[in-house]
Amino acid sequence: MRKLRMGLVGGGPGSFIGAVHRIAAELDGEMELVAGAFSSDPDLSRQAGVNYRLDPARAYPTFAALLTAETRRSDGIDFLTIATPNHLHLPIARAALEAGVAVMSDKPMTATLAEARELAAVAAAVSVPYRLTYTYTGYPLVREARRLVAEGFLGAVRKVLVEYSQGWLAEPIERRGSKQAEWRCDPQRAGDGGCIGDIGVHAFNLAEFVTGRHVERICADLNSVVPGRALDDDCNLLLRFDNGAVGALIASQICVGALNGLQLRVYGEKAALEWRQEAPNTLTLCYADGRSENRYAGTGVLGTDAVAVTRLPAGHPEGYLEAFANLYRDLANLLRGKGDAPLLPGATAGLRGMALIDAAVSSSRERRWTALPV
Amino acid sequence: MRKLRMGLVGGGPGSFIGAVHRIAAELDGEMELVAGAFSSDPDLSRQAGVNYRLDPARAYPTFAALLTAETRRSDGIDFLTIATPNHLHLPIARAALEAGVAVMSDKPMTATLAEARELAAVAAAVSVPYRLTYTYTGYPLVREARRLVAEGFLGAVRKVLVEYSQGWLAEPIERRGSKQAEWRCDPQRAGDGGCIGDIGVHAFNLAEFVTGRHVERICADLNSVVPGRALDDDCNLLLRFDNGAVGALIASQICVGALNGLQLRVYGEKAALEWRQEAPNTLTLCYADGRSENRYAGTGVLGTDAVAVTRLPAGHPEGYLEAFANLYRDLANLLRGKGDAPLLPGATAGLRGMALIDAAVSSSRERRWTALPV
Amino acid sequence: MRKLRMGLVGGGPGSFIGAVHRIAAELDGEMELVAGAFSSDPDLSRQAGVNYRLDPARAYPTFAALLTAETRRSDGIDFLTIATPNHLHLPIARAALEAGVAVMSDKPMTATLAEARELAAVAAAVSVPYRLTYTYTGYPLVREARRLVAEGFLGAVRKVLVEYSQGWLAEPIERRGSKQAEWRCDPQRAGDGGCIGDIGVHAFNLAEFVTGRHVERICADLNSVVPGRALDDDCNLLLRFDNGAVGALIASQICVGALNGLQLRVYGEKAALEWRQEAPNTLTLCYADGRSENRYAGTGVLGTDAVAVTRLPAGHPEGYLEAFANLYRDLANLLRGKGDAPLLPGATAGLRGMALIDAAVSSSRERRWTALPV
Amino acid sequence: MRKLRMGLVGGGPGSFIGAVHRIAAELDGEMELVAGAFSSDPDLSRQAGVNYRLDPARAYPTFAALLTAETRRSDGIDFLTIATPNHLHLPIARAALEAGVAVMSDKPMTATLAEARELAAVAAAVSVPYRLTYTYTGYPLVREARRLVAEGFLGAVRKVLVEYSQGWLAEPIERRGSKQAEWRCDPQRAGDGGCIGDIGVHAFNLAEFVTGRHVERICADLNSVVPGRALDDDCNLLLRFDNGAVGALIASQICVGALNGLQLRVYGEKAALEWRQEAPNTLTLCYADGRSENRYAGTGVLGTDAVAVTRLPAGHPEGYLEAFANLYRDLANLLRGKGDAPLLPGATAGLRGMALIDAAVSSSRERRWTALPV
Repeated sequence: MRKLRMGLVGGGPGSFIGAVHRIAAELDGEMELVAGAFSSDPDLSRQAGVNYRLDPARAYPTFAALLTAETRRSDGIDFLTIATPNHLHLPIARAALEAGVAVMSDKPMTATLAEARELAAVAAAVSVPYRLTYTYTGYPLVREARRLVAEGFLGAVRKVLVEYSQGWLAEPIERRGSKQAEWRCDPQRAGDGGCIGDIGVHAFNLAEFVTGRHVERICADLNSVVPGRALDDDCNLLLRFDNGAVGALIASQICVGALNGLQLRVYGEKAALEWRQEAPNTLTLCYADGRSENRYAGTGVLGTDAVAVTRLPAGHPEGYLEAFANLYRDLANLLRGKGDAPLLPGATAGLRGMALIDAAVSSSRERRWTALPV
Repeated sequence: MRKLRMGLVGGGPGSFIGAVHRIAAELDGEMELVAGAFSSDPDLSRQAGVNYRLDPARAYPTFAALLTAETRRSDGIDFLTIATPNHLHLPIARAALEAGVAVMSDKPMTATLAEARELAAVAAAVSVPYRLTYTYTGYPLVREARRLVAEGFLGAVRKVLVEYSQGWLAEPIERRGSKQAEWRCDPQRAGDGGCIGDIGVHAFNLAEFVTGRHVERICADLNSVVPGRALDDDCNLLLRFDNGAVGALIASQICVGALNGLQLRVYGEKAALEWRQEAPNTLTLCYADGRSENRYAGTGVLGTDAVAVTRLPAGHPEGYLEAFANLYRDLANLLRGKGDAPLLPGATAGLRGMALIDAAVSSSRERRWTALPV
Repeated sequence: MRKLRMGLVGGGPGSFIGAVHRIAAELDGEMELVAGAFSSDPDLSRQAGVNYRLDPARAYPTFAALLTAETRRSDGIDFLTIATPNHLHLPIARAALEAGVAVMSDKPMTATLAEARELAAVAAAVSVPYRLTYTYTGYPLVREARRLVAEGFLGAVRKVLVEYSQGWLAEPIERRGSKQAEWRCDPQRAGDGGCIGDIGVHAFNLAEFVTGRHVERICADLNSVVPGRALDDDCNLLLRFDNGAVGALIASQICVGALNGLQLRVYGEKAALEWRQEAPNTLTLCYADGRSENRYAGTGVLGTDAVAVTRLPAGHPEGYLEAFANLYRDLANLLRGKGDAPLLPGATAGLRGMALIDAAVSSSRERRWTALPV
Repeated sequence: MRKLRMGLVGGGPGSFIGAVHRIAAELDGEMELVAGAFSSDPDLSRQAGVNYRLDPARAYPTFAALLTAETRRSDGIDFLTIATPNHLHLPIARAALEAGVAVMSDKPMTATLAEARELAAVAAAVSVPYRLTYTYTGYPLVREARRLVAEGFLGAVRKVLVEYSQGWLAEPIERRGSKQAEWRCDPQRAGDGGCIGDIGVHAFNLAEFVTGRHVERICADLNSVVPGRALDDDCNLLLRFDNGAVGALIASQICVGALNGLQLRVYGEKAALEWRQEAPNTLTLCYADGRSENRYAGTGVLGTDAVAVTRLPAGHPEGYLEAFANLYRDLANLLRGKGDAPLLPGATAGLRGMALIDAAVSSSRERRWTALPV
């Protein structure tokens, strides 16, 4: 059985996420990167193709050129990964889907909620899949956490605390040459949300993915802590879920010293769970009698969802790249017709993320509680 | 130099905090418990006096009797500790202060903000001190944290996250015979706040104590998670400080599995700090270059405020009782005329706590941002 | 019921452990320090008496004077605590015991194994108790660990790793004015063991206390890492237990940066346990299926031995002083005729510690495996 | 530039390490698996080739057939990875090296010290490289630790504690169908060492790699804790280094509940360091003033050796597969003539590991201190 062929838009020089997509997709030997439009600068795109060891003919100057050429080839790409700034997500995804090419897109879904609705309509109308890389849902113990909640291990969910703290934007590095920071601080490219759109949606998605509950109302406080920023670099939200559960979402990119501090706690009637991205192979369970318990990736106490995405024996840490690869493993199964990859987020999860951004921006502006517009 | 003589109201059978006050006050050999009105039941009060090895004549049936008798004795008490449910704080403190007896009161200051204002006026009018046992301010590393912020080690404070999670009220134990739970869930005795008044004020005080900043506005979500409760057992607040800093206060008594999870993080322009009550002898500092650093009680890198309240060499854990004892050490110094104990909270901190409770209740009821009424 | 009256030898100015004994003994309100011979310098002894707020007549110039006077008083001491350098343990303990005064002695039992045998004989011949402050056995979770092993929770013990790492002697501070370091580095006062005698015996005692097993043979490597030391400041031992279990004891006072790093791990057939003195309120259990579990002081899952020595609700840290106080609580019970305080170490445990020191010194000198001479 | 072509001996069905080698080698897009002799059963080898998506002609029945065929192809393999039980390391490596094929071998080098000497002679005589996968040397923070020691950050090394605890052999699973356990417990295939050869050498290599010092003498206690085992499943060693430093090596496969607990501590005159494989992206430094400091992978405070093998921003965990891939990255550089990959272990490190096994077995048997025979 041949490898699935991957195209990539974005991921040129200076990109961190492009190489990650390549490694993640190829990790299990099921896919290979064969084509790309890596940069809006054709020379840089060509150079990236060389670095990726591609056939030079398949390093395209634009995503349009890529789609045109690849859909004509008998060995054309099986799917297209979109790793561009947010404002390009909609046009590229729409073009690909309408050309019959499956899409794996970075989050957030689009730059605005209106765009997301447009894209969701397109995705619903085509026969090829549209999926999003909410990376953290790929960790085995996140999937284990989801299973435990779904199976009632915690009892009814009462409180959810999710946090995503980073410190890399504590200084105005977007004015000091950081490409990564530049577009994320630019409303033209990032869309309506700064921190809320870049990492807040990850936290939000993680909370909904694990609990299986939907946030209904929020009260958001979005801040631009570093002077001169047009978008938020810090956000704190009160949450109310559809089952009456309460909670908070805390996210920031100005928490000096914080690295990639995503963490989730879910408190149920009977037990609680805790997971931290920086120690991703441990899931902590807390009980009413005061005991707490750690369960580790690779041990025999985990369910099939976690086992299915674990490669190594217990105690041999798997990390971010492997979590990312698990999303591509899901995609491979989906593309090969092996099930419908229920754990791989798609348009619905994408839309909810955009609804969160939209609601957070308006809640914060108007200083009031706001319902999610979905 | 003789020991200072302590009277205690409350702390009878079934009380946890009474014995704590006794141990804490006596720990350094500077004070001794000599009198008490330990229970509203005279027999229980008498029995408690026996347990505390007091002169039977000094185990009084009421606090009024205690004040009357002790103020007449030549060896009468030097101060009165109030360890009762909240609704008694005002009458006892007022009576003591007006009788010229110094007061060390449990938090919150009173049952309502109006009462607190009344008591603050009394305290301002008398010459004897009124102080509150915001216990957690007694930990050496909390005082070290305060010093570091005050000296600019973090730069300007940008974000404050404070949390106090417990799980002991996850079940309706107030209806199953728990004395501790009963009065805390009863508005007649606890006052306006449930969780917010019992532990939320601790978290709030800790945040203000360490940062030296005042919370100006909040948006609160107070919840009664366990059905049938008249008061909140969970609260989540967005915070805005007087210097523009943002933050959140998360507190709960229904976080199953949580023990006494008070923790504080303060993010400044240059560095951040983190402290956790359950590992109180460590203070973590985080730097912009990604390093984090632990500083331990008893080591030579700490300032004088921390050193002054440390009894043991580094690595020999001091805990909650020692932190509590540090407040009494401050009080002893104050009563002996050795300085004004600037780190020992008094009426101002008490009032602020009551303002928080008041604002939180109204903010939550009205679903809106609210200014603190102070 | 009156308080028990405590005498103290040692613990004068510059002593850390004297104040600890006083606080620990008095913590529960069952004992009070009333007399002492605090220093070999009569003036310093007198001054210490003032600091401790004693009757000046009971601050004696020598322990002999103390014993003579106190045994004549109707309100004389009920027991004598010995907190001197090791070489004085034998003469003081013998004199006290022979005078009919109960003894609570610092470890190690004496300066040499021969002395220990002599003292054990004395202790066996008198009717008053002789006990040792192996402090770490006072922690609730150490006692819980002991119970779990005794009840077979781990199955047969297979491997024991115990470590005690400190860093305070990484520099030759005994030549720079440190009183604490001076006598510990002086064979005339410390006896045969340096690190092995000062902290190695703590680790050894902890291992035997928790496992209920005896070390039979050792192979020791004792080192004087800092040049010029007459005694070891670092020691590493291979262990064989009486039931065939294996293990190691690692101790050092030159581990720069280490504070008071005592920790124990016990691996059984079915489960393992781990305890760390610097986080003393947690006991970790590890299971064959890969789960690990934390149990906390104050929670309802602990046995009666732990509950009996816990003062605070879960999550309110108790520390070193409280552990020390638990030994005095045992002693109080013993002196009041409430049981025989089986968890409070006495001459047998003292002798075993001295046998360890003796065997370690000879094993290291001769570079061979050695049986413990008991 | 074309990808380097990899051949693999071993790694057939049931093997854990085969897939690891494939992923690790291919991770950076610089190498690809093209040929293999995956099993001693030709059918299984063929099937493995299908699973790896190889050209069926290049899934060989024996390593001899592989070498013969591949050395004749113009697109033959550039190097051969050996992932077999230990007794096959020598014949395969010798044949490959003598055929001019570079070798990447699993550790330990061979089954016996005599074999290792033979292989070292072969390796010294050929022009193609021979290297070993001491996997843990591939972690960025292990390389950072090595750099810090080499640059004198710790001062002279005084004490080294290295531990490798696992629990997977706590039961006699070699008699219950575990292929992984079977050969490791069989002296015919594993060689002289059980636990000492399987994981003890990893710990030993890690200690020497980081400190840059050589162990000179050991006193070993090798145990077969589970009854009926011909080889050790637990080992504890006292260590003496060439610079006078002391230490211990603790390894076990019967530590129930332990997963893959490799950890190293190095104490120097000025500072200490600590690293744990299960949290591999953190390096802890401890200072004489009592502060401890964490440094994280991906942050700007690390040296070039660590940076060179880091793929992700700080806080995005890299794990075991990435560490393994770093060894292949070194090998790729070596094979492409980009330097001599000084951090990639070769015959010298392999020989030292075999000397450790040999010395440990004889030291334990004779119950005496033994010099390493190198």
